[in-house]
Amino acid sequence: MKANGTDLTTASGVYVIAATPFHEDGRIDEKSTDSMVDFYRACGCDGMTILGVMGEAPKLAAEESVAISKQIIKRAGASMPVIVGVSAPGFAAMRSLARTVMDAGAAGVMIAPPNTLRTDDQIVTYYKQAVDAIGDDIPFCIQDFPLTFSVVMSPKVIRSIIQELPSCVMLKHEDWPGLEKISTLRGFEADGSMRHVSILCGNGGLFLDFECERGADGAMTGYAFPDMLVDVVRLQKAGKRDAAHDLFDAHLPLIRYEQQPGAGLAVRKYLLKKRGVIASDAQRKPGAPLSAKARAEVDYLFDRLAKLDARAKAA
Amino acid sequence: MKANGTDLTTASGVYVIAATPFHEDGRIDEKSTDSMVDFYRACGCDGMTILGVMGEAPKLAAEESVAISKQIIKRAGASMPVIVGVSAPGFAAMRSLARTVMDAGAAGVMIAPPNTLRTDDQIVTYYKQAVDAIGDDIPFCIQDFPLTFSVVMSPKVIRSIIQELPSCVMLKHEDWPGLEKISTLRGFEADGSMRHVSILCGNGGLFLDFECERGADGAMTGYAFPDMLVDVVRLQKAGKRDAAHDLFDAHLPLIRYEQQPGAGLAVRKYLLKKRGVIASDAQRKPGAPLSAKARAEVDYLFDRLAKLDARAKAA
Amino acid sequence: MKANGTDLTTASGVYVIAATPFHEDGRIDEKSTDSMVDFYRACGCDGMTILGVMGEAPKLAAEESVAISKQIIKRAGASMPVIVGVSAPGFAAMRSLARTVMDAGAAGVMIAPPNTLRTDDQIVTYYKQAVDAIGDDIPFCIQDFPLTFSVVMSPKVIRSIIQELPSCVMLKHEDWPGLEKISTLRGFEADGSMRHVSILCGNGGLFLDFECERGADGAMTGYAFPDMLVDVVRLQKAGKRDAAHDLFDAHLPLIRYEQQPGAGLAVRKYLLKKRGVIASDAQRKPGAPLSAKARAEVDYLFDRLAKLDARAKAA
Amino acid sequence: MKANGTDLTTASGVYVIAATPFHEDGRIDEKSTDSMVDFYRACGCDGMTILGVMGEAPKLAAEESVAISKQIIKRAGASMPVIVGVSAPGFAAMRSLARTVMDAGAAGVMIAPPNTLRTDDQIVTYYKQAVDAIGDDIPFCIQDFPLTFSVVMSPKVIRSIIQELPSCVMLKHEDWPGLEKISTLRGFEADGSMRHVSILCGNGGLFLDFECERGADGAMTGYAFPDMLVDVVRLQKAGKRDAAHDLFDAHLPLIRYEQQPGAGLAVRKYLLKKRGVIASDAQRKPGAPLSAKARAEVDYLFDRLAKLDARAKAA
Repeated sequence: MKANGTDLTTASGVYVIAATPFHEDGRIDEKSTDSMVDFYRACGCDGMTILGVMGEAPKLAAEESVAISKQIIKRAGASMPVIVGVSAPGFAAMRSLARTVMDAGAAGVMIAPPNTLRTDDQIVTYYKQAVDAIGDDIPFCIQDFPLTFSVVMSPKVIRSIIQELPSCVMLKHEDWPGLEKISTLRGFEADGSMRHVSILCGNGGLFLDFECERGADGAMTGYAFPDMLVDVVRLQKAGKRDAAHDLFDAHLPLIRYEQQPGAGLAVRKYLLKKRGVIASDAQRKPGAPLSAKARAEVDYLFDRLAKLDARAKAA
Repeated sequence: MKANGTDLTTASGVYVIAATPFHEDGRIDEKSTDSMVDFYRACGCDGMTILGVMGEAPKLAAEESVAISKQIIKRAGASMPVIVGVSAPGFAAMRSLARTVMDAGAAGVMIAPPNTLRTDDQIVTYYKQAVDAIGDDIPFCIQDFPLTFSVVMSPKVIRSIIQELPSCVMLKHEDWPGLEKISTLRGFEADGSMRHVSILCGNGGLFLDFECERGADGAMTGYAFPDMLVDVVRLQKAGKRDAAHDLFDAHLPLIRYEQQPGAGLAVRKYLLKKRGVIASDAQRKPGAPLSAKARAEVDYLFDRLAKLDARAKAA
Repeated sequence: MKANGTDLTTASGVYVIAATPFHEDGRIDEKSTDSMVDFYRACGCDGMTILGVMGEAPKLAAEESVAISKQIIKRAGASMPVIVGVSAPGFAAMRSLARTVMDAGAAGVMIAPPNTLRTDDQIVTYYKQAVDAIGDDIPFCIQDFPLTFSVVMSPKVIRSIIQELPSCVMLKHEDWPGLEKISTLRGFEADGSMRHVSILCGNGGLFLDFECERGADGAMTGYAFPDMLVDVVRLQKAGKRDAAHDLFDAHLPLIRYEQQPGAGLAVRKYLLKKRGVIASDAQRKPGAPLSAKARAEVDYLFDRLAKLDARAKAA
Repeated sequence: MKANGTDLTTASGVYVIAATPFHEDGRIDEKSTDSMVDFYRACGCDGMTILGVMGEAPKLAAEESVAISKQIIKRAGASMPVIVGVSAPGFAAMRSLARTVMDAGAAGVMIAPPNTLRTDDQIVTYYKQAVDAIGDDIPFCIQDFPLTFSVVMSPKVIRSIIQELPSCVMLKHEDWPGLEKISTLRGFEADGSMRHVSILCGNGGLFLDFECERGADGAMTGYAFPDMLVDVVRLQKAGKRDAAHDLFDAHLPLIRYEQQPGAGLAVRKYLLKKRGVIASDAQRKPGAPLSAKARAEVDYLFDRLAKLDARAKAA
């Protein structure tokens, strides 16, 4: 176990959320999968997260999930750790996928709470049971995304999970609003009540500029310009605040457009195709393609961005 | 396909919701599975529904779901049609399970709506996409259970699904309140705006006495005395209204106790064990066992029932 | 303040949830209001709770709420304490109503949590702010009704509210399932971690038989036979368990029918009218009247009950 | 009635959502209320909307709501129509406020759906009952804000409301994503299936740049630079697309920061105070003030904006 061996508690930079490339007819596009991994490496990503919501994980059959995980982990190689989303309706399926991908070399797994959880105790208990199920030798990342999962984790709850479960190594933070939450969690570290874990932020990157300043270690999101995310995190770490914001602000109109619940994935895949990363922007059902108007809007934003960032160049 | 060949649109009586028997250590108990099927047949059940919420379906690994389905379908034989719950986070997994169990001889599948659906159009579209995924040659049953799924289907929405999708053969009705809904749907049939499908009622049987009178064809629920459900439906069909209510009322204190969200499954398994149907009342996690007090309460109700119905006899 | 002076922490028996009687045209029926109060006293109720969900509180204009509260408090007199629901979208309106009804002689107020609350801290903070708003000299009752309010309070949260807010005197318990919660809360008292408050149970009385045995002090619900509720609580206190269950079970078919979300109020008002308590069963909009079929079903259950309990006699 | 006489179906430009200014101790600040109205007029706003979520409406006592409505309507005068939010837990309170503010000269009212509504029919029925309650002589605006109200209105539902209720004059559009919805609704007009109403967009203005291009008539939101919103709408109407986007993009970092659920109001009030519009940024409870870090972040964004837009000047 821990086949990969990476210490994720100190992970920083950008763990990009990978899409799952499909052919127009809905089959997984293995060639695009490889080119996508290569692209993410070329962008300077520090790691990858696969089989998340944006990876259309629930739309894959069990054997497809395993196959694509193995392919990506292999292609990513030792230098780019891969975290695999293993959220499932039950613990048997979660365990099965978690053990399989760890054996294949994953660096850890990500677990989202089921949307029936309400009280603090219910949430902490769920993570304990999940660790019982998958085994406490598998490093895991909490996914805190209330907008999608309808589960609200207070900072205290996150602290309880981290303190009671040593295999918790990371928080994918995508609460909204979420800046104070990062400050509170880093405050828990400062006052000694919580050990350190990596905090990487999602929410499409919409607040990445300030999240870094609040103590986050970087981003875990799928914005179609991960190379920009890499630069923003790097500039912030280097103390170049204004430069970080300048770059971020140039991308903000597009980031904002991409960060639309449901519709965002179509934008993201369209942009990845436009940049030549994947061959098709097809999604599996249910999944709405971009309308002609929306495509034209994305093109317009892309062209405006091109004036400020040379990376916005169509393939 | 349609390996079983049963016309479920005319199904009536009791399609019992089967539990999934586990050993104390959480492994599936195959021997109890067989004895449970035999018990249901001896009770006079007209069919079975497996892999529902009460069958702890989400707690099974994919290969376990297939294995137990095959075992039950085989044991049930030609005389007792089996409907298999195939609700899944995505269509690939749903299709895979649906095709497999139909090949194994299932009579149909049951599909619950994912809890993100809100508008009428979203719900109808979901069922269309589900049929696209599994194939229109597989008879399916709508599961209408707002309390658990948070999806509210108006009678018009159910009618749209039935009219637009010929492979819809049945409604598992467990809205609450739900009596007027049955009358409205049967009214749609009467005015010619909707074709006939079977309506079997869930909700633990809490309103079965009146559901039959409103036009339901029977019950689809897992109350631990399916033999009583069978009699109530039979008496109502025979026009023996008072006798049906007398029998129903004798069981109502226990039915009511069983119909507690979450806790109900523990009661149900405890009673099945008490009746000698399964060897253990173990549930997989997450699943709370009965407290000592709750067990004593169920025993008390069981003993009181024994004075009115000889079936309440411990094994 | 505390004009009434009753110590609600030791309240027991039945605090009936009062309906708000309307004329057919929607005006408040003051004459029926008085006769209803007299009826509740004659039933042996220990107190009343008004302006709850079942009292159609949100459908009243502010001045109507005040007027009917004053009338009922006056008619109830010193012997029958009145608790007034003051839940409101904001604290200004809550404070205004709470101070007014206390000045008019109410014994306390009842506060439900707004349905946006999720985490433990959010819930406790809400009650602290509510007490800040209304003043800590007003005794209040927590309304714990997750099915309607979508707010789940763990026993620990309830304990925090009780321990941190001395003016908390009572819990209206209507969680479902809820029996273990009562045992847990009474366990907190036994281990010294929580002071004693009165626990009165709602949920239409559906579990009153066992709630008393778990440590509840009685009922706070609006079932149309409060005289039966009074007897059940009395019998349980006297240790006559079987007699209590016998009486309860005779009413269970009707209790169950009444306990249908939304539809229940129509049943309740229809039965109160049938018993001659109020002149009309009209509700204000939105509020569905009983269908002809539903009325016939209630009549049927009423007639069946009449064979077992002489109280079931139409006016 | 229709005291104001404005035809809101053709309203366009910016109807600013007004804050409710408080003194530090929580009393309404009448002087700041007047200066705020004057500021909005000077900004070029075409109208105002008061007593919305951002106006802290639920935190006002009934008499305060009436008083501040009257003051604002009077100060706004004939040239700036005022729409008043009258959403309430029940129709009696809604009617009372609606009639009162219309008599005082309001141009119309805004009605949000209660968060219990689910099906299409439930939503349409609710608006019918609301119009029955307030009277069909009062022009009303639908507030479509699923993120906050948890009610999802499909375009068909909105069309039904508009077609069946002649007093519906406007849609406050703040679905997210929402661009396709605007196109669909304007398509209904084009195909003759829906009459024209004004569509003004909320969501903090986060998509205003494209909403105008999709057919919206303007904005109804409370961003602290309504003068910028006015310019963006004007530029778009004049066909100056690039200029509109340039101006919008300059503000986007701040718009994005303001558009945080819950926290947004604190940012908005802080900015209004910073611009000298109101004396204090105090909110009534529950309402979290900005942390020191958040204030510094807003200041930073404000200073960055100042380099691009001279309006960003502290008072």
